[in-house]
Formats: sequence, structure tokens, C-alpha cells
Amino acid sequence: MDDVYAIEGGHVLTPDFEVREADVLVDREAGEVIEVGDVSADETLDATDSLVMPGLVNAHTHVAMTLLRGHADDKPLDSWLQEDIWPVEAELTPEDIRVGTELGLVEFIKNGITGFADSYFEVPEIAAATEASGLRANLCHAFITIGKDDAAARADAQEGLDIAREFDGAADGRITTALMPHSLTTAETEYLEEFVPQAREAGVPLHFHANETQNEVDPIVDAHGVRPLEYADELGMLTDDDFLAHCVHVDDREIDRLAETGASVIHCPASNMKLASGIAPIQEMLDAGVNVGLGTDGAASNNDLDLFDEIRDAAMIGKLARGDARDVAAEDAVRMAIEGSAEAIGLPVGRIEAGGTADIAVVDFDAPHLTPVHDYVSHLAYAVRGSDVRHTICDGEVLMADREIRTLDEEAVKRRASEAAAALVERAE
Amino acid sequence: MDDVYAIEGGHVLTPDFEVREADVLVDREAGEVIEVGDVSADETLDATDSLVMPGLVNAHTHVAMTLLRGHADDKPLDSWLQEDIWPVEAELTPEDIRVGTELGLVEFIKNGITGFADSYFEVPEIAAATEASGLRANLCHAFITIGKDDAAARADAQEGLDIAREFDGAADGRITTALMPHSLTTAETEYLEEFVPQAREAGVPLHFHANETQNEVDPIVDAHGVRPLEYADELGMLTDDDFLAHCVHVDDREIDRLAETGASVIHCPASNMKLASGIAPIQEMLDAGVNVGLGTDGAASNNDLDLFDEIRDAAMIGKLARGDARDVAAEDAVRMAIEGSAEAIGLPVGRIEAGGTADIAVVDFDAPHLTPVHDYVSHLAYAVRGSDVRHTICDGEVLMADREIRTLDEEAVKRRASEAAAALVERAE
Ligand SMILES: [Zn+2]
Ligand SMILES: [Zn+2]
Repeated sequence: MDDVYAIEGGHVLTPDFEVREADVLVDREAGEVIEVGDVSADETLDATDSLVMPGLVNAHTHVAMTLLRGHADDKPLDSWLQEDIWPVEAELTPEDIRVGTELGLVEFIKNGITGFADSYFEVPEIAAATEASGLRANLCHAFITIGKDDAAARADAQEGLDIAREFDGAADGRITTALMPHSLTTAETEYLEEFVPQAREAGVPLHFHANETQNEVDPIVDAHGVRPLEYADELGMLTDDDFLAHCVHVDDREIDRLAETGASVIHCPASNMKLASGIAPIQEMLDAGVNVGLGTDGAASNNDLDLFDEIRDAAMIGKLARGDARDVAAEDAVRMAIEGSAEAIGLPVGRIEAGGTADIAVVDFDAPHLTPVHDYVSHLAYAVRGSDVRHTICDGEVLMADREIRTLDEEAVKRRASEAAAALVERAE
Repeated sequence: MDDVYAIEGGHVLTPDFEVREADVLVDREAGEVIEVGDVSADETLDATDSLVMPGLVNAHTHVAMTLLRGHADDKPLDSWLQEDIWPVEAELTPEDIRVGTELGLVEFIKNGITGFADSYFEVPEIAAATEASGLRANLCHAFITIGKDDAAARADAQEGLDIAREFDGAADGRITTALMPHSLTTAETEYLEEFVPQAREAGVPLHFHANETQNEVDPIVDAHGVRPLEYADELGMLTDDDFLAHCVHVDDREIDRLAETGASVIHCPASNMKLASGIAPIQEMLDAGVNVGLGTDGAASNNDLDLFDEIRDAAMIGKLARGDARDVAAEDAVRMAIEGSAEAIGLPVGRIEAGGTADIAVVDFDAPHLTPVHDYVSHLAYAVRGSDVRHTICDGEVLMADREIRTLDEEAVKRRASEAAAALVERAE
């Protein structure tokens, strides 16, 4: 393979969200765009009738949960977790985590996702699959202390910290890490007080679930007399490196606290709908200057990992929230999935300009549902679906060309995942 | 071509929503399924790793509006219509309507839609495109009386009636018609009193927009002292042949009125979100026994014509409506897009059983986002997208095989639509 290649004959989405006809010259080794304009190279990727845009970033997911896709639906969060999800998760082997992760990464690449933030367990398996896939990720082991004795609680938190230290900078720097207290109600105060400062010393951000349901708000208000994000701020858990999944049930003071501290929110609209958690006040957050990214959450509450769905969902339910069709406009929703997510989880943002990071999705616009093209960005928000992605590039490497994945064996992954999922459900019964 | 062909090697979704391995023998001439089981024929369609299911029915659309897809977004209904949609619609020529319709029909076929209900103008063009496409449809000319003098109002209503009479039974019976007063606020009482009985005499149902926004409720309550659907019922506009688009802002008594009369509701969740109209109380309607179908509405407020999106949207916002994850469960949402829609608009329902109508979609489940398959119906609701459809069959005819459309020239349609849309926007400026 050559050191450089050209993405030829397409339109590009520039960092200022203008669209213009141009070729893109990429330096594979440096993982950078060399030039945008009238260029050529011996090796090419065709972009005729296509838009060359930054790769999407899925900023909150549990990627191995693909094995549970469609296993149980249409149930409230508590009984869904207790009756359907946890009993099956208890049976997951490291090999299951590996193949479930690979399946999710195949889906990411097919849908133009070039980076993601994951939280789960058996992180070494997730890191190995990520390294093989060629994607970027921020990974963490989610620790839970509630319901455990002190030794078990401390051991779980320590594992989270150890994993964060061990894998930060792995895969030639494509993997970074976070410390993840699972949520403000499942990781107790004394452990947060002990481990959060150690995350700061290790130089890793915090990633946690916050205010997903009212059940994650009331116990904190009752116990501490303040709202959850005020409680988190008092514990030093809100800095501009940190990112919080969901934030559905937040009040104006909590939104201000997010804006002041620079902590990011990861909006997961599909999961919030499917589990009936509610609609996060995203337009209020944007107006207050909060950085918002987008996440699919796990496949069991979605049920796919196509971030174009979340862009559309964010724009759509963003208008329902206050009954205003101007809210969460197309460009805002698309930007959330690119720089909103990337900045939230600390990954570089793909930029189609000289010197920009070569994390790129090439989207085919030659399709009836994308005809005519009055406005490319409108289509990205309201009509493009993951299956329109032709090529996916991360760190300069072509991970998928003409929908053929080069880094993982798609057919083998699907077969192994089907077998693992069937065996898993059988074991859990 | 042979008189019979076999859809081989797949799973079928039976009328009682069971899934079993079987081939399907189809009689092309009769437009019927001959047998479901272990059958074969000289001519075959491959269904390996696929689900053979009834075609979807898009029960409320304005198909020619594909030309305005992405022309204007993120605006409230009133200013969107007045500033962006109506000025462009005023410039539409019959040839524009023809090519815009063909583009929408290409999209329908690609997404596994086999029948639809349309309301617009220049209906002869829409009928001709429908006949050529091989799809089924209920068509109508939407009449408006408000803001017109009596002669113009009566002429528009008369055109609606004439069109309904002329095209009912066209295209070998694949086309039926309706009388469409545009809405209860834009078609005035005296014209409803005059023309609704003539629709009954002509044997055609009523199709109209109802209670889409609060602005369609308040004027009727003010003028008549009753809710809009009570007013409609008093005018004889609710029978079990009639179908009402939207019904977002309905109260319990109106829901009861729908259940008692047998009139159907066409739920358009994407349009209702994008225009910030609100969430229709679909679970309450289902509980009351109201028949509910699904529609995309026009592409300008969606922005695609993929009814799998509406199935997912209906299930998703159905849970937000009352904050209950059990509401609008997967099977209910899928059924709405099949028998709910078909029964609402008076088209036959596709049924994969001996003697069943051969309106069929074959969906490829060999994809990462549909792996593993714990539950086919869950995937239809939450993970399948229109691009997963391999073959589309209507009235026994294969309209698309392996994503190649046989009845319309997809490439020519896209090219002509792009040209027509560009010229249209230029004329309107
Ligand atoms: Zn999560
Ligand atoms: Zn409509």
C-alpha cells in the first residue's frame, strides 16, 4: 500500500460545515489529511456522488451488548435489567465479550463511526478487539459498590482504576481510558472520595451515568439535600475532561453547573425513548453552552448501533421537548455526533482540511431517499442512514472500502456472534 | 415469465405473527400465495437468511413532495408552509408531479412498501405513475374551500369528487380513491354538508387531516362548541371506511367516538415530531379498539419515505407519551404498518398463507445490525431499515428483485427528479 491515497470526485463537508467539490489527499502513516482540492494519487477511493465528512463518534455505548440485541424489549428499566439483562450478563464469558464487541465494531465501521466511548467489563477483550478493528476508543471498566461488602466494592473500583492506567495510550494511542463509577447511585460516596482523586493523578477523565431516570435523582436529593450534579460537583466529578451519559432529569441549576465546569453530556435519545426515561433538555443545554455528544447506549436498548439514527432522534425529540420545531436544528444535531462527541470523550475530531485528523466517512448520496439534494446537512440529519456509508477511514487507515471491511472478518464475526448469543441465552435459562 | 414462482429458503411471518422456515409459492396472475411449505418452481427468488413478510402500507403521504425533501427544515408548521412550501408548490407543473411521484414510488419499492394512500393535486399524473410502478394506492385530490369565493370552493370540491369517481378501480383495481376535504378547518361546513353525502353515493371513503395541531382544534371548539371529531361525526364523516391523518390532539371522548364508529387513525410520528405537533395517544387508541395505521406524511416533513422508521418511531415515542416502556410494543407497531394501514385505507392485507394476497416484502436478516436473531419481530420494529429489503412484490408481480426495480427506471427517475427540483426552486425564488 502507498503512503498516500486520494478520495476522488466527491464533495467535502468542511470544518465550518460548508460543502464544496474537492478531492482529499490522505497521509496514511501520519493519519492526516494532506490537502483538499484538485489532487490525485496512484491509490484512490471513489467518492463520486458522495459526501466526504468527518467520522461519527459514538460517545456512550456498551458495545458487547450486541449479543443481547432484541433479547427483551418493551419493559420498564428496572424489570428489564433484573429479569432480562443482568441474568444473561452474569453468564458472559471473556470470549463472549470479545465476539460481542467485534460484532458491534463491525456495525460501527459499516455505519461510518470512527470513534467511541465504551464502559463494560472484561476490558482487555474489548481493547484487543478495538486494536484489531482499527477504530479509536475511550474504554473503561464500570465499577459498582452498592450491595457489596467493602472489600468487594474496593476491589471493583481498583479494577476500574487499574484498567484505566493499563490501557491508556494502547493501540498506538488510539485507545484512551476513563474511570467509570457506574452511576451516582450505584457507586457510593466513600469510594468516589477515594478513587476520583486517583483518576486525576492518573490523568484519566471520568465517565458515568447521571440523571437517567427520576430514580437516580430522588435518592441523592434525599440523602444529600442537593441535586445529583451539585453532589457530583462537590465530589470534584465535573471538569471539562469528564462526560456524563443521559442527563435526562436535570434542572436549570444543574445545566448551569455543567456549563460552568465544562463537563460534557452524552445524549442517548433512542435509549431514553425505548426505556421511557424521558427527553433530555438538549436545546437548553446548547443555549447554556454545554458541550453535548451523542451515544447509542447498548444495543439492547436501541436496538442497533447506527448513530445516524441518534442524529435524527436528537433533532426529532428535540422539537417535541418544548413543542418548538426550531429546536435542535439539523446542523446542531450533526455537529453533536462529530465534534460534540469527540471533544466530550477526548478523541481527535475528524476534519476535512489540510492537517486535519483523517477520521472520515464517505456517504453515498446517489440514492432515491437522498434525491434531490437541496441541502447536504439536512440529509445527514433527516434522511441518511448507516447503510449509505461507502468508505470508513480512521487514523488514515481505510477500515471499509465499498462496504467491505478490511480489518475484521465480517462473515466470521456474525457467525460466531450468533452461536455465542444462542449458547448464552440457553445457559441463562 | 412463468405463471408461478417460488420464494425459496427463507423464514415466513405468518398472519398470526409466528415465524417459521418455509418456501412460498406465488401465483403471479391471481396475485395470490398458492402454498407455504416445502415447494419449488422453475422461477425462484432467493430468500436465504431472509424473512418473507407482508408488504408495508404507507397510509398517509403526499408522495410528489419528494421534490421538496430537505428544502426547508426546523421551522414551525405555519411559517414553514407559508414561507417555504406553498410558494414552491404553486410552481409545480403536472410534469413535476409526475417525476416527484415516480421518485417517491421508487423509494417505496426499495423500502418494501406495497401500498399507500396519497392526497395531493394533479391526481391523473399520480395515478399514471402508480399504474406504471405496479403498486396499489388509494388516491385523492385534496380540496380546500377556505379563503376562496363560493365558485372556486365548489369547483375544488367538485374536482375532488370527480377524481374520486374517475379513478376508482383504475389500474386493474389496484387504484381506489377517497374524497379528501383537506382538513376540518380548511374545508368549510357547507361544502362538507354538500359533498360528503356524494362521496357516500359514489362509494368512496373519506380521507382527511384531523387534530394535527391545537390550531386545528380551537377554532372548531369556538365555532361549534364541540370537539373536532364530534363535529366530524355530526357531519357523517366518521364511518369504518374513513381514515383520519394525525389525531395528535384528541381527548378521551374523541377516542371513544373513533372506536364506536370504526373510523381509522393514521399515525405519522416522524412528521408530528419534525413539525413539533406533539405525540398522538396511540396506546390509548389501541386500548379503546381504534384501528391505527402508519404514514410517513410528505417527504418534506420526514424527510424520507422509509416506513420502517415510522414503525420504530411509533414504538419509541409511544413509550415517551405516558412514560411507560410497555406501551406500543414491537408487535403492535409492526402490525400498524401492515394490517392497521391496509384495513384503514381499504387495500387488501398481504398474508403469507395459502390464498393470501401476494403483497410481500423479503427482508435480508444477514447483516451485523440484525445479528443475532433472538426475535424477528423485535428486529422489524427496532433494527430493520428499508435498505434491508431485498425483494418487493405487489399483487403477485415482482417489483424489485435483489434491489433492482423492474417497473420504473430508477436512474432516470433520480436524474429527472434532481433536474425538476433544481428548476422548481429557481422558479419559486
Ligand atoms: Zn449506558
Ligand atoms: Zn398530510
